[in-house]
Amino acid sequence: MTRVSFDEMKSTIKKAFVIAGMSEIKADVCARVHTESSRDGVYSHGLNRVERFVDYLIKRLVDANAEPSLISTPGVMEVYNGNMGPGILNAKFAMNRASEIAKKNGLGLVSLNNTTHWMRGGAYGWQAAENGYVAICWTNTESCMPPWGAKSCSVGNNPFIMAIPRKEGHVVLDMAMSQYSYGKLQVTRLKNKKLPYPGGFDNNGNLTDDPVSIEESRRILPIGYWKGSGFSIMLDLIAALLSGGLSTSGIDKLNRGSCGSCSQVFIAIDPLKNNTQEFVDNILNGTIGQLKSSVRANENEKIYYPGEQSLKTRKENMSLGIPVDDDIWTRVKSLANL
Amino acid sequence: MTRVSFDEMKSTIKKAFVIAGMSEIKADVCARVHTESSRDGVYSHGLNRVERFVDYLIKRLVDANAEPSLISTPGVMEVYNGNMGPGILNAKFAMNRASEIAKKNGLGLVSLNNTTHWMRGGAYGWQAAENGYVAICWTNTESCMPPWGAKSCSVGNNPFIMAIPRKEGHVVLDMAMSQYSYGKLQVTRLKNKKLPYPGGFDNNGNLTDDPVSIEESRRILPIGYWKGSGFSIMLDLIAALLSGGLSTSGIDKLNRGSCGSCSQVFIAIDPLKNNTQEFVDNILNGTIGQLKSSVRANENEKIYYPGEQSLKTRKENMSLGIPVDDDIWTRVKSLANL
Repeated sequence: MTRVSFDEMKSTIKKAFVIAGMSEIKADVCARVHTESSRDGVYSHGLNRVERFVDYLIKRLVDANAEPSLISTPGVMEVYNGNMGPGILNAKFAMNRASEIAKKNGLGLVSLNNTTHWMRGGAYGWQAAENGYVAICWTNTESCMPPWGAKSCSVGNNPFIMAIPRKEGHVVLDMAMSQYSYGKLQVTRLKNKKLPYPGGFDNNGNLTDDPVSIEESRRILPIGYWKGSGFSIMLDLIAALLSGGLSTSGIDKLNRGSCGSCSQVFIAIDPLKNNTQEFVDNILNGTIGQLKSSVRANENEKIYYPGEQSLKTRKENMSLGIPVDDDIWTRVKSLANL
Repeated sequence: MTRVSFDEMKSTIKKAFVIAGMSEIKADVCARVHTESSRDGVYSHGLNRVERFVDYLIKRLVDANAEPSLISTPGVMEVYNGNMGPGILNAKFAMNRASEIAKKNGLGLVSLNNTTHWMRGGAYGWQAAENGYVAICWTNTESCMPPWGAKSCSVGNNPFIMAIPRKEGHVVLDMAMSQYSYGKLQVTRLKNKKLPYPGGFDNNGNLTDDPVSIEESRRILPIGYWKGSGFSIMLDLIAALLSGGLSTSGIDKLNRGSCGSCSQVFIAIDPLKNNTQEFVDNILNGTIGQLKSSVRANENEKIYYPGEQSLKTRKENMSLGIPVDDDIWTRVKSLANL
């Protein structure tokens, strides 16, 4: 397995983005987020997503130069048009703006319409936590999952993120509404393995852990069966209502690439507006302590708090280099004329 | 099966609460919420929960006369001490207050600490929707579920609610973090049946749909395996941080009955602060239309939007009477001296 240093990966991705039409400054930010995603183990939305993003820039499905513009300020909230600019830049802007409002008001809510794929949703949770804010954010997507009771896809897998800042390591949840991504199905299939737990229905309507059967039926499972299906619908509707933007059904009709013209919500809260740092530390460490002292299901497997495994992977990849798929890495280098 | 009219159930429960020490006015509100829960099919937190609530009043685990008091106003938020008053009254107050703030600010966030069991969490979603507000609310609880990787219980099943007002029927999601409640396991066991889908691990660590094995192991499954486990932890931490209250580990130590001194968050948003009613209708009906036109997994089973089945049950129970367990109904009547 080839491993690449953070700096080499970032500068390569940046070059590819500049060649595809982004400014130096914007390419730098986007390349950093892609590289950080790979660094943290989210390869699907890091290096592995670079080619598709470049393709979208070329096809004008993403406007490299567009910036978010303020549409309205309903009460204490702010609503922006993402103007089909790069999803990473729009989302970073929105979470930053929500945090600025939270600094003043304790609570900030910013929504975005007409934006594009934000890549790894967790990036904006980590961003807020790094700046000292509790964050909740989510996006809607095009249809890619059957709602409960259906066998055709008509809801999104709408990633949902919650983050809490913590000195010893932020606590960050980053989850899509499907039990497994199509990427996970593919990786499992290529290894000739079964999924760890059932991940969808086969064409006969039976629950299965066989990735091939699910890829065939396209019936990926919502988390918690009917619960994740309902949760996905609510996230979609609320994102569209808050941002005055499109819901999944509108995104499907527009059909401008993955997540093209999607709607997103960013909530930031200042945990120190009402608490001492000591109280915050006690709450976090009390809960993490209780987690860690639970009886393990398997003696040899640790119990992790949300985000802990990302930090572990980050440490490893910063020390050893970030693992890459050789073919993908070669192709990204060629996009960067390297 | 015995069926009881809404009015008879409500007046009976009200009498039981008055005898247990509540004022007429407070008993009326609490009895209404319990009856509405049974009316909507949430029997576990409706009539079936009356005896335990009366027991808590008698044991002073709930203070019948306590009212929430404002602790602080961090920025645009408000934080209240629930003073161990009736959870229903505290939660209704908090959601109402969040809605009042949303009326002015577009967005309102109220948190409660030191409150008691709010019974059916969905009640506060329906309440907000009835008043025209989008709502998000949740509570933490005592430990009742193993976190992912553990076989001992150390996280709550922390119900999470999202609601959207809609003329033709509100869209409301009310979900706990466990795939099934212990009540569902019991009901399934008594019928000598299996769960529709795996609901936990048995004592050998195997996923099972057998309710008895899960009741024995106490290893109920979080929705989406590791995802619901992480979601539960985040909801717990954020509720404690926002309200300056206890997290699950603190609730466990205090040990003042189910949900005694728990922490809750209530968010309300005015969907018309930034949108016309026409836009809102289009978003809701576009999504519901797309859902309904999905290809059914089973020809004979309809696809529902979140909350639709509650409305269906409500209609049926209002017309035929609310079904009751004869033994429970007899005991509640005796608490009401009937």
